[in-house]
Amino acid sequence: MSRVLVTQLSISLDGYGTGEPQTLDEPFGHAGQRLHRWLFADEPGGDRVSTGVDAAFGAVGWDGSVGAEIMGRRKFWPYAGEWTDPEWKGWWGPNPPFHTPVFVLTHHPRESIVMEGGTTFHFLDATPEEAVSRAKEAAAGKDVRIGGGPSTVREFVRAGVVDVMHVVVVPIVLGRGESLWEGLGDIDSRFDVEAVASPASGVTHLTFTRKAS
Amino acid sequence: MSRVLVTQLSISLDGYGTGEPQTLDEPFGHAGQRLHRWLFADEPGGDRVSTGVDAAFGAVGWDGSVGAEIMGRRKFWPYAGEWTDPEWKGWWGPNPPFHTPVFVLTHHPRESIVMEGGTTFHFLDATPEEAVSRAKEAAAGKDVRIGGGPSTVREFVRAGVVDVMHVVVVPIVLGRGESLWEGLGDIDSRFDVEAVASPASGVTHLTFTRKAS
Repeated sequence: MSRVLVTQLSISLDGYGTGEPQTLDEPFGHAGQRLHRWLFADEPGGDRVSTGVDAAFGAVGWDGSVGAEIMGRRKFWPYAGEWTDPEWKGWWGPNPPFHTPVFVLTHHPRESIVMEGGTTFHFLDATPEEAVSRAKEAAAGKDVRIGGGPSTVREFVRAGVVDVMHVVVVPIVLGRGESLWEGLGDIDSRFDVEAVASPASGVTHLTFTRKAS
Repeated sequence: MSRVLVTQLSISLDGYGTGEPQTLDEPFGHAGQRLHRWLFADEPGGDRVSTGVDAAFGAVGWDGSVGAEIMGRRKFWPYAGEWTDPEWKGWWGPNPPFHTPVFVLTHHPRESIVMEGGTTFHFLDATPEEAVSRAKEAAAGKDVRIGGGPSTVREFVRAGVVDVMHVVVVPIVLGRGESLWEGLGDIDSRFDVEAVASPASGVTHLTFTRKAS
């Protein structure tokens, strides 16, 4: 059955999934790469260096089981408003790692962008429910991933459309940024949670699984 | 060697060590007992029900190794300002579980209160450094515990006087309350951290150990 997944969402001890300000030079703001060192040597999309439980959690959803991705506008391009660089095609080079349709949520829809390797970026002005419906259709029975950022994930969890959410608690404190948890005070009544700590990296992998309703 | 310890400090995923408002009826505010269910059946000081790694972490510092305790005013009595109930002797009954001198930090010092079983409450208007110095003297070579609440712990960590801090991340979201992490953005550069997840309760035990300077 097609599920809606969040995977590898890394947050600080105080709940921030990115620092600020987000720019082309520093997509995670003052957090730099610190949220993702449990998985990548350099930067997200760089060499994967983790082993053991970190590598296992890092692989989830990247094994061909995901058939479509949904991401927030600022994961694709860090600034709000009208598109100011029509040549921008994301951070991921000519052959992005998704290899599926990717739905970028934006109030400024534009033409789709076809990349190498099966990735096509579509630009969609839609509610979480509408976006999931569209992505499920595109995924043709495979899973749908909500790729972030934190405020996009929060919005989809609030809307009740997320089945499984993997959150990585990294033992750093950011103090400011995009909070994952804002408005999710009922998370423990809606999800079961499993916690696994990584002896290698010191992070904790939390898996939230939606309770049967 | 006498160390300064924080033990069993339970916080939510968004970093709050207590809810609000704190009152005599609900000392942890809207958090109720949810932060402490990994350890206590009923309420802090009630029957301990945990097993395995939770029970082990729950016992740390309660084995006679702590010789003096420091706590914030609101851990002793939930309201600020002048003492309005001179008969109040804390939450813990005639024979509190400390069995040592306990230094309650307050801007309104008053006479010490001698309890059964070796506990004496002293009331101290002091900086973290001064309080630790006074408590170490009283502990006579044993460890000193910073007993909370979260803002008191934060203040002592900021002051650089804490050697080991055990934090329990409980998979709930509180949204508001007393944050442990405010102003501790440098925690990962000052402490090493070990994470252990509890399969029974789903909490994560984080042990912060001050780096050798």
